Amino acid sequence: MKLSRLGEFGLIDRIRRKVSVGRGVRLGIGDDAAWVDHPQGSSLITADLLIEGIHFDLRWTSLADLGDKSLAVSLSDIAAMGGVPAYAMLSLGIPANFDSKQLDELYRGINGLAKKHGVTVVGGDTNVADSLLISVCVIGHPPSKPICRSGAHVGDDIYVTGTLGDAALGLALLRRKRLRQSSAMAQLLRRHHRPTPRLAAAALLARRNLPSAMIDISDGLIQDLGHICQASHVGATIQQDKLPLSNAYRALAGKTGMLCALSGGEDYELLFCAAPRQRKQIEKLNRLAGVAISRIGVCMAVGNGVRVVDANGATISVTASGHDHFKIL
Amino acid sequence: MKLSRLGEFGLIDRIRRKVSVGRGVRLGIGDDAAWVDHPQGSSLITADLLIEGIHFDLRWTSLADLGDKSLAVSLSDIAAMGGVPAYAMLSLGIPANFDSKQLDELYRGINGLAKKHGVTVVGGDTNVADSLLISVCVIGHPPSKPICRSGAHVGDDIYVTGTLGDAALGLALLRRKRLRQSSAMAQLLRRHHRPTPRLAAAALLARRNLPSAMIDISDGLIQDLGHICQASHVGATIQQDKLPLSNAYRALAGKTGMLCALSGGEDYELLFCAAPRQRKQIEKLNRLAGVAISRIGVCMAVGNGVRVVDANGATISVTASGHDHFKIL
Repeated sequence: MKLSRLGEFGLIDRIRRKVSVGRGVRLGIGDDAAWVDHPQGSSLITADLLIEGIHFDLRWTSLADLGDKSLAVSLSDIAAMGGVPAYAMLSLGIPANFDSKQLDELYRGINGLAKKHGVTVVGGDTNVADSLLISVCVIGHPPSKPICRSGAHVGDDIYVTGTLGDAALGLALLRRKRLRQSSAMAQLLRRHHRPTPRLAAAALLARRNLPSAMIDISDGLIQDLGHICQASHVGATIQQDKLPLSNAYRALAGKTGMLCALSGGEDYELLFCAAPRQRKQIEKLNRLAGVAISRIGVCMAVGNGVRVVDANGATISVTASGHDHFKIL
Repeated sequence: MKLSRLGEFGLIDRIRRKVSVGRGVRLGIGDDAAWVDHPQGSSLITADLLIEGIHFDLRWTSLADLGDKSLAVSLSDIAAMGGVPAYAMLSLGIPANFDSKQLDELYRGINGLAKKHGVTVVGGDTNVADSLLISVCVIGHPPSKPICRSGAHVGDDIYVTGTLGDAALGLALLRRKRLRQSSAMAQLLRRHHRPTPRLAAAALLARRNLPSAMIDISDGLIQDLGHICQASHVGATIQQDKLPLSNAYRALAGKTGMLCALSGGEDYELLFCAAPRQRKQIEKLNRLAGVAISRIGVCMAVGNGVRVVDANGATISVTASGHDHFKIL
């Protein structure tokens, strides 16, 4: 079977079934990060591979932004488990015509974000390649109980941090060359180029043991909520009018409407579920977390699937289904 | 400065100077693996990135062999620290025309070696790419005192496991299309396609705290010995007539002579130094380790550099200096 037919998630599932799980693995393939035992203690591990032409375009991405973002996506995975990132391994494939100043730019971005979050780059590999490749592996310390995708229950509230769709809308405008000199445009582009891993919010949530399930939104709200639903054997209903949108998004979305907020990728916001009894505690966190936390829906019985409803409760059909690195072929 | 002028090791040195070292890092960039603290205990971490057309050629490499080797090179790095590998993260860039059977073949190789050494693949990333990319990060448990490159002293003996140059000679014959149906040829090719990470020997050496410094030979004996010498501030003299050669190598080296044994890459044998008082203990290990251990030279004062001498003590000039992923451009 061609991989384009199998799709990214079919592929991941196939890999998971082929891999035998050995000792010490508390959580293997299929969540934001793996959770593994050491002789004493345990660690979270996550990896991302970014490929020029697939994940980034150097025509409109600076190397410093790219360095920052390459690390941010993995830090976001550690956040999604409620963990604290500590070490990064960074393997690079570098085009032959690169020079050392360009590499310095890339590392300026990486080191800036690493320093901000107390992460040290401890090693990796360097090779020549036809296009720029960045492979990141981050090791982090877990909270006392890492937050998996699989803990949501029917009746749990569904929350997101920050605002949705900004990065995807920024990228869409970049691709359509609809750039304007405006602060709204700059804000969307910044969200695309410099996503913020929600480590502080995640740590606060984990410390209080509030989420029943959590994921970071990298492939779009609907798709990533689908991952929680699948892992937790629940359905979900999202209220479209509750989705947190930035003023910049409202100003520039135009005909795109809610599509980027619902299905656009690369928000790197936290999406989590929590029992209704936790509402007050979570509302309080709104101020502490340094980012807004919005209640956007509720977990339903599994037969419900993932539905989006309008203010009157009528189902809205969502066409684009988020990002799949193989289905796009 | 163009990276081809800077060279791989100039580049690694530049990266090391740019990266700020945070808490918990016992050993960062510049050894076979990093050594990092957890709230309890510590881990070894290593990463390798294999790129089609640079590190492997699918015209003469089966996907099962490639899967095995992709993991083996990182396991060899953990061996070089005296550690026990435990977990692997595996990120793949997969060409669009790949099918799921090909992927199964790749995983057959990966899983076979993983199972043999009690390693679990706990996660990674999958993406479409123009050519096959394999990024591996392995996390392992350190011995009570990991063996670094930096501990060798003047007067220490120098040892290698196994035989040298087989993989490089096998690859050279493949490239020159000088293939013959012979068991010697098959043996060299097997050494190229399926290197053996010397985990058992490394664990025995580490448990007895015998080596003062250790590295795995991935870039060729002379170059990797140079890494030990540089990190330990010593020189080294190697006796060419003491280099362990396989019968297959002797049968097929021809005009290549000792070049592959001295400078060929991808042996993935252990190269280590030990004080002369340890000789008897190391000789005893020869039987336990499941692989021959040969004494090939001695550490000298740093001004000596890395020299190769013949049986009469006359210096032999070695032209090729091993593998550099950027200098080859």
